[in-house]
Amino acid sequence: MNLKEYLATNRKRIDDALEILMPPPTGPFGEHVAAMRYSLFAGGKRLRPLLCLAAAESVAKAPHQAYDSAIEVACVLEMIHTYSLIHDDLPAMDDDDLRRGQPTSHKMFGEAAAILAGDGLLSYGFELLARPHAHLDPKRQLRIIELIGHASGPFGMVGGQSLDISAENEDISYEQLQTIHRAKTGALIETALHTGAICAGATDVQERALSSYGAHLGLAFQITDDLLDATSTSEQLGKGAGKDDERGKATYPRFFGIEETRHKARTSVDKAIAKLKEFDARAEPLRSIAEYVYTRTN
Amino acid sequence: MNLKEYLATNRKRIDDALEILMPPPTGPFGEHVAAMRYSLFAGGKRLRPLLCLAAAESVAKAPHQAYDSAIEVACVLEMIHTYSLIHDDLPAMDDDDLRRGQPTSHKMFGEAAAILAGDGLLSYGFELLARPHAHLDPKRQLRIIELIGHASGPFGMVGGQSLDISAENEDISYEQLQTIHRAKTGALIETALHTGAICAGATDVQERALSSYGAHLGLAFQITDDLLDATSTSEQLGKGAGKDDERGKATYPRFFGIEETRHKARTSVDKAIAKLKEFDARAEPLRSIAEYVYTRTN
Repeated sequence: MNLKEYLATNRKRIDDALEILMPPPTGPFGEHVAAMRYSLFAGGKRLRPLLCLAAAESVAKAPHQAYDSAIEVACVLEMIHTYSLIHDDLPAMDDDDLRRGQPTSHKMFGEAAAILAGDGLLSYGFELLARPHAHLDPKRQLRIIELIGHASGPFGMVGGQSLDISAENEDISYEQLQTIHRAKTGALIETALHTGAICAGATDVQERALSSYGAHLGLAFQITDDLLDATSTSEQLGKGAGKDDERGKATYPRFFGIEETRHKARTSVDKAIAKLKEFDARAEPLRSIAEYVYTRTN
Repeated sequence: MNLKEYLATNRKRIDDALEILMPPPTGPFGEHVAAMRYSLFAGGKRLRPLLCLAAAESVAKAPHQAYDSAIEVACVLEMIHTYSLIHDDLPAMDDDDLRRGQPTSHKMFGEAAAILAGDGLLSYGFELLARPHAHLDPKRQLRIIELIGHASGPFGMVGGQSLDISAENEDISYEQLQTIHRAKTGALIETALHTGAICAGATDVQERALSSYGAHLGLAFQITDDLLDATSTSEQLGKGAGKDDERGKATYPRFFGIEETRHKARTSVDKAIAKLKEFDARAEPLRSIAEYVYTRTN
């Protein structure tokens, strides 16, 4: 398959859907909505919604059914991911001025507006998930909300960011590093796969396989993110490179060196792909995405 | 009825339920959970959950049915209210050191941990709302999640806070002040009533009446909050008094003076109570709470 074309097509679909789902930046709350939109349309890779749609495609009868059932959930995953980036970039957290080559939210709008833009995206995302849905029954919607609430909350993304902040300049073990990664980035990626599967009516066995794929892919993604930070220039990344090292952050390259880390990324990608062995050609996008996560580090 | 006793009993029930619903501050995410718990158990009045339960009681066949159907929703409303206070108190927002006589979250745990404690409470709240519920069918759960998502989001609480921050030291009109209040505090209070009504199986007419009661009560509450800030000492409030004036914030007393503001509070309370005219004795707690919101300013 042509992954580049597949990703471009689906990114366009996701961007178009986000444009419709997000309110226009007008009316009394226009400035606040504009701040939410600024970060949401700042050129993200759309990894989580792409994975959600691809998971749905891997079990749906036809691609359009995958799209119809999963597009809103996919878009909400991107809203929640965007909120987490806005908050992570704040001066009190990672203090980043650039994100994807553009000023971060607090640089553009000030700290207060940035905190609130993040907060707004999170609440609005849950509101969207609960709206009456033509292709999802209420029980499935509730399962999806529960999973996304869990993955983004104290035992998922927010908890992981909290551990990550505490761990700065601390000597932490490899086990602790894994706990941080699983919670901070792994949980939401795994949930993107899991909820995509639920949307498209996956069996329990398929749900578990796609979740496991997501767990391995999420780990691979975190490992390769660490690698990119250690080996790229700021210009290549569109954000500050080498910042992990500067902050004394525990990363895979610090534990294992560059080559062993690259090997670990490869192993995680292989494990992810192995989880798809019972899936037919409809899972090809997921297989290709896993390969792509690895190759972006070369 | 004995309001003091009623409130004490239900506050105890809410606190007990929150204790059960909140995870213990142990395990890998213990510090983060401890920060969430610190603010949640810092002696809040529990107004929103009390109103939610009272709304449920006003239409339920028996008080225990109101409790069984609405207690989780009531607790989540308090979690979301607490998250909003944590974020409002941040240095980038209202920069408050004290809340209910105790150090604010960022004073206790630092800014990063405080931002994340708020974020964690919000996600966790939505997770709880989506869990399988013995007394609510999935469609009602989804309506409740949608309402709470909306009331806490860009067109409710967060949007209102955003307007409030922008309006500091600006000359705003009375209409703008009303928009801020309705969104910042009114929306979640109205939703506490509305969701309590839904939990207990209210008719559409009852839902509308209870929501309207909530809208008027929310306004009365905001007006009296402004009054208390203008007329109390910091010791009485357990937080900085006179801060609105110090910041050049638009408030009711600045527009209308103390006496006219007090009159407006009375009018809002009367309108709230009038919305309950078709309700029987089961709505007595709601009537008494409305009176109490007024009398606390005397």
